[in-house]
Order: sequence, then C-alpha cells, then structure tokens
Amino acid sequence: MSGPDRQRKEAGFRERTRVADARRRLREAVDAPLESERLPLGEADGRVLAETVTAAMDVPHYDRAAMDGYALRAEDTFGATARSPAVVRTAEDRVGPERAVRVHTGSEIPEGADAVVMIEDVVELEATGELEVEDAVAEGENVAPAGEDVAEGQELYEPGHRLRPSDLGLLRSVGRERLAVGRRPTVGVIPTGEELVDRDPEPGEIVETNGLTVSRLVGRWGGRATYREIVTDDAEALRAAIQRDLTKDVVVTTGGSSVGERDLIPEVIDGLGEVLVHGVALKPGHPVCLGLVEDTPVLALPGYPVACIVNAVQFLRPTIAWLQGAEPAPHPTRTARLERKIASEPGTRTFARVALERRDGDLVATPTRASGAGVLSSVALADGWVVVEESREGIPGGERVAVENWEPSG
Amino acid sequence: MSGPDRQRKEAGFRERTRVADARRRLREAVDAPLESERLPLGEADGRVLAETVTAAMDVPHYDRAAMDGYALRAEDTFGATARSPAVVRTAEDRVGPERAVRVHTGSEIPEGADAVVMIEDVVELEATGELEVEDAVAEGENVAPAGEDVAEGQELYEPGHRLRPSDLGLLRSVGRERLAVGRRPTVGVIPTGEELVDRDPEPGEIVETNGLTVSRLVGRWGGRATYREIVTDDAEALRAAIQRDLTKDVVVTTGGSSVGERDLIPEVIDGLGEVLVHGVALKPGHPVCLGLVEDTPVLALPGYPVACIVNAVQFLRPTIAWLQGAEPAPHPTRTARLERKIASEPGTRTFARVALERRDGDLVATPTRASGAGVLSSVALADGWVVVEESREGIPGGERVAVENWEPSG
Repeated sequence: MSGPDRQRKEAGFRERTRVADARRRLREAVDAPLESERLPLGEADGRVLAETVTAAMDVPHYDRAAMDGYALRAEDTFGATARSPAVVRTAEDRVGPERAVRVHTGSEIPEGADAVVMIEDVVELEATGELEVEDAVAEGENVAPAGEDVAEGQELYEPGHRLRPSDLGLLRSVGRERLAVGRRPTVGVIPTGEELVDRDPEPGEIVETNGLTVSRLVGRWGGRATYREIVTDDAEALRAAIQRDLTKDVVVTTGGSSVGERDLIPEVIDGLGEVLVHGVALKPGHPVCLGLVEDTPVLALPGYPVACIVNAVQFLRPTIAWLQGAEPAPHPTRTARLERKIASEPGTRTFARVALERRDGDLVATPTRASGAGVLSSVALADGWVVVEESREGIPGGERVAVENWEPSG
Repeated sequence: MSGPDRQRKEAGFRERTRVADARRRLREAVDAPLESERLPLGEADGRVLAETVTAAMDVPHYDRAAMDGYALRAEDTFGATARSPAVVRTAEDRVGPERAVRVHTGSEIPEGADAVVMIEDVVELEATGELEVEDAVAEGENVAPAGEDVAEGQELYEPGHRLRPSDLGLLRSVGRERLAVGRRPTVGVIPTGEELVDRDPEPGEIVETNGLTVSRLVGRWGGRATYREIVTDDAEALRAAIQRDLTKDVVVTTGGSSVGERDLIPEVIDGLGEVLVHGVALKPGHPVCLGLVEDTPVLALPGYPVACIVNAVQFLRPTIAWLQGAEPAPHPTRTARLERKIASEPGTRTFARVALERRDGDLVATPTRASGAGVLSSVALADGWVVVEESREGIPGGERVAVENWEPSG
C-alpha cells in the first residue's frame, strides 16, 4: 500500500475487487479449520461437526410394538371382522398358534409373533379369557422392526454439518454421548476513530455502534467476540491494538479502512503482514480492507454503519464458518414484489435495504432509502436486503425479488 | 378425563381439535407476558422489547461532513470543472465567500458552509496556498444534516419487537444504554416413560432423546430449559414431577400423553388443574395434551420423537414467544418442486418431512419417509417440512411447495 501509487490512491480506489474474488482470496488465506474439541451432546447445538458419524447400533435395536395391543401371528387374524372375529387366547411371553401376548408401544415383540393387533380392535371376553380380534392384520403390521429408523453402520452425518436439536436426539439414539466439533472462533472487535465516544456525543463526535453490532453478530454466527475499547486514529495505537488481538482467531476493526489521510488501518496491516484486498466492488461499503497478519485474518470494516454491516455479513460471517469447518448457511429469503426501482451500477454488487409489507395478499418490498451508507436506520428498520448482482444495472419496480434476512430470529 | 367416557377414550380419541383452535385455547390461557427486566444493550440481542422506543435525539445530532474534503459555499463552485476550476482560499474555522475549511468524514460542518467538495476534486496550489476546485457541488452535497438518520421524537420500535444486532446499534446511537425486555421464560422439561434409559438400552428399552431435543429447542426459542431426570409411568411420580416445576413458567412432559393404559399424564393434569385440549388433528403427533395448572401451561407432548418435535414447534414455540410478549416469527421457507406426492387426510394438518436437493437448477423436495412418527431420522435428516393444510387431501407430485425450516442456523 506504499510506494509510487500512494498519491493516486489518496484520491480514491484505483480498482475494486469483485465480491466473489475478494471472498476467494480470503478463503485461501483461511487455509484450514481450527482444531476440534469433544463436547457432550447437550452442549453441541449450533456447533459444526468435525467427524463423520456412523450409527454404532440399529434404532430401534429390537423388533418393537408400534401400538398398544396384542402381539400374535398375522395368519391367525386373516379374514377377521367385527361380525366374524378371530378368537385367540392370551399367553405370557411366547406366541404360538392362536396365542397372543399383551404388548405396549415400545415393547419387545415376543418370540413367535409377527404382527400387533391394536387394543381397540380386541374385545376381551371375561368369562372365557378369550380374545376376539375384530380386524385382520398383515405380517409386520404395527411392528417397528430393528433398524427401521437407523441401520447399524449407516453414515448419518459428515464433517461440516451444523448441528440442530433434532440431530442431537438422533445422535443420542445411536449411542453417542460426546461429539467432535469445531472450536468456536475467537474474534477481537476493535472500534476505531477519533470521533467516536461511548456516550453523550458533542458536535463532531459520534456514538460507537459498529463494534457493538459486530460483536453481537459474531455471537450469532458461532464465534466469541471480545469487544474492545475505542482506539483513536493513531498508527502506533492501531498497530498495538491489532497486535494484542493476534492471539484471537480473527481481528476485526471498524472505521479507518478507506484511503483518506485518517484511514491508517490498511497501512498498519501492510506493515504488520499482508493486505489481500483493499476496495471491493460493493455498495454500500466499498472501502473495506482484508488482510492477513501472522496467519490471522484481519478484517478492516468501513466506519459507516451500513457499510460496516454489509461487509461483516459478506466477509466476517463466512470466515467464522470456515474456521469452524463449515460453509456459511444461505440466508433465509422471502420472495416479494419490488415496490419501486432500485438503482445500481453494473460491476458493483449492491445491497438495497427493504421493508416488507403484505398488501392485498402479496408481499411487497419497499426500499428504505435510496442511498446513505451512514444511515443506520435504513438497515436496522429494514426486514432484509435485495442483492443486485454485478451483471445488472438496477432492478425495475414490479419485479419479483428475493429478500435476504441476514439477521433471522430462531 | 374421568367418568363414563373413560372406556371409550381408551380406544382412541373421540374428537381431535384443529391446530388453530388448540393454539387459540392455549393463547387464551397464556393471558399476559411475563414481567420485563432492564438489560444493558449488549445483553439484549434476541430478546423481545417491552417498551416503545422513541429517539431522544437527532442522529446525527449536528450537520456533518459525509466525505473528506473542504466545506464551503456551494455557490462558489458553480460551473467549476477540471479545465476551468473555481479558486478558493483556505480558512481556519469559519466559511465566507471563496473560503473553504478542511473537513473529515464526520466533522461538524463549519459555520457559513452549505456543502463539501470531495478531497479528490481539489488541487492544492502550494505556491499560493489557493485551492482549485475541479467539480461543482450543489447545496447540501456531501453534508449529512442533523436528523438525517433519525429525527428526535421519531418512534423507532414498539413492544414485541425481537431485537437484532443492528437494532442495538441504532438504539445506542439515539442514546439508549439499557432496554426493557421480556424476561426469558423458564421451562421444566420432564421426559417420561418406563421404557426410557439414559444409555445402553436393553431390548424393550429406549434411549431418552425427546427431553434433550426439546431442551435445546427451548434455548433456541429464547427460553431457559431445565432438563429433568426421566420419570417412570407412575401417576404419583408424574404428579410430583409436574408439581415441582410449577415454579417454572412452562412445564413440558414427553411421552404418556395419549389414551392408552400407560398414558397417565392427561389424568394427572386433569387432577392438578385443567385439560384445555387432548388430541389434535395433526399428523404425526395427534396424541398431545395441553393443560393449565395453577396458571402454568403444562404441555404434554407425545413420546414418538417426530410427534414430539412437531408438537413442540406448534405449541411450545408460540408459548415461549407469547410469554416474552411477542408473536412467533414465521419460519424461514424455501419454495421447491415436490418430487412425489404427499398423502394426507382432509381435516388433519400434516407435516411431511422433506430433503432438499438442487437438480438442474431447480430445488426439489423429496419426502424422507411416507410415515413413521417414531422415525427420528425422518426429521433429523430432513431439511424441513411441508405443511399440508386441513382443507387438502394430499399434495400431488410436481406441485411447488413451501418447505419450512423450523431449525434454522444463524
């Protein structure tokens, strides 16, 4: 970032890397997931599996009754109806011809039985102790055979799978008590800018919000954030702050990432390590800088709040996923009719914030503001954004668009 | 649940309440949200707002420069181009005719200025100290006026809003440091069934999975679960277990919720309080029982794993939302082409688990199993489910369907 081009770069970005290329360079720098750790099942929700899981046993592990009723031989019920019931006698634990054993849902099917007749289809004759079976059952009916749910040896999950509560249930049912999962990446979040204050801003001062927002996003994405104190625009202070957090798995700064005279972070990264990308063809938020210092990704996000968030979602979210051994999940999206046109420049990926509203049974997406990378309310009061790809020059009103919800609720 | 109908109920449910009606009865029983608590912003992500938030100040709270450059009077630049620049002189802190003050992004706009010309459009003439402005700016250009983002007095959020990281940033920018949010509901989760064991099942035994899965779902939905020990099918033991957890905001049991002779929980609830609903027209999972004991909702979920999960999503998830003062968020859905038909009975709401796969650019939803409320893999290995409404008799293959992801990743 130094040398003969310095003067020209002061006056703007000479070139802007496309989002996909910037992400690819970052991906190559994050060369391997972090080490894994073994956790009890109950603590593994949301974590990324770091092993292949093969079922160590059948589920169920025995032939079991799927209903309350009587286990018997299906052939003894053939042709039975309420008017012409089949008659059998009860037995204790072994089924023979015209013998039936009382079973409950989940009971082991007794030896000799091949079906279960439901309790509501049986009339117990108290006088004789006989049973009248009022409906025929086929062989295997109301029996859950061993391995019906999961067969021993079946491959259930591959590394990279993000665990959900139902997965934990299934894993426990095949005998797993602990799982190898990717460690949660630690992220140092450093807000920078001499204009920033924690509270009670004077004219010329701004309340710090980016570090707060990014820290909470890190938590949602599976990382552990350390939200640092504000650092002023001083190269030595910035260098020290970044170096202190090289013990983390990722360092994120906010502010000071552009090419102005107070934008010192790209040079600081360049001095400590390597700048991978500076300036990305996205809007809002092109002045982002992605670097690598001592194998630690350092993501310098722009200081404008919307620009900061857009870049965090584009670059920090996948980094946290990669470090856990996963790909980032697609954002939940909803399809809506665009209320009015979105402008964009070809070659730039544009993130247009929209509010969603149901109108006459149709979902309508209305852009919250035409522009304003600094206008935090345009994203905080939106329901998501529409991504305009580089190949397009805006999207006309009326078109059906996909609205990405990048901050979903559970 | 007692009395002359007892014999008939043993043989099945006389009637099944529709899902919407069951939910309405439960909603009426959960008559008010829990008390609120005041939290620092940084701890409020994912919580439900319990107050109306009005902006106490403008954001920005002063006219500020939106770019690095020079603040000046727009009229002094009219007609300026690179070939015919406007010439102005620098000033310290006050702008007059043909005077400009150096500003940085975020600086207060000095008195007398009404626009900012970007630094890259200015050439500094070292010899004379004059500035050549190579582009005209309009009044207000590159100035973010006070209140541009948020105006003092503007209503930003209403109670019931589930907070996201970007909301926290916006709230901090308007001077909020703490927020009133709904308390997290506490949930006692009691797995029941004499066949259940924690590990190493013998024939006739089943590893407990429902309580584990439900506990983790409670956490995702904003509640705090206490995952209790297994309780056997004994009315006294079940009564004691439910009574112990009446200090919680919700009690959930799994298993023993149907009408068989070992299904004791509905009677236990009836003895302690009131059964609101027993038997719901949904599949898999009709044998659910919803009750109220000493104002505490008691949800008795069926023991079959898929039935348990379906009912937890239908009834426990909204209960946790209501107690926080919110409505449950819609599930993220994706539209896909149904690979083959789903069967369902009219009058019953059916949840058909499907796996999603991209094929020839089209998203295809394939039902994982035709049936099997006990088949946990049918839900754990699925990507979501298709809901077949009561009004329909199945869905033919080839139709475009909405696949609900009820366990989304962040």
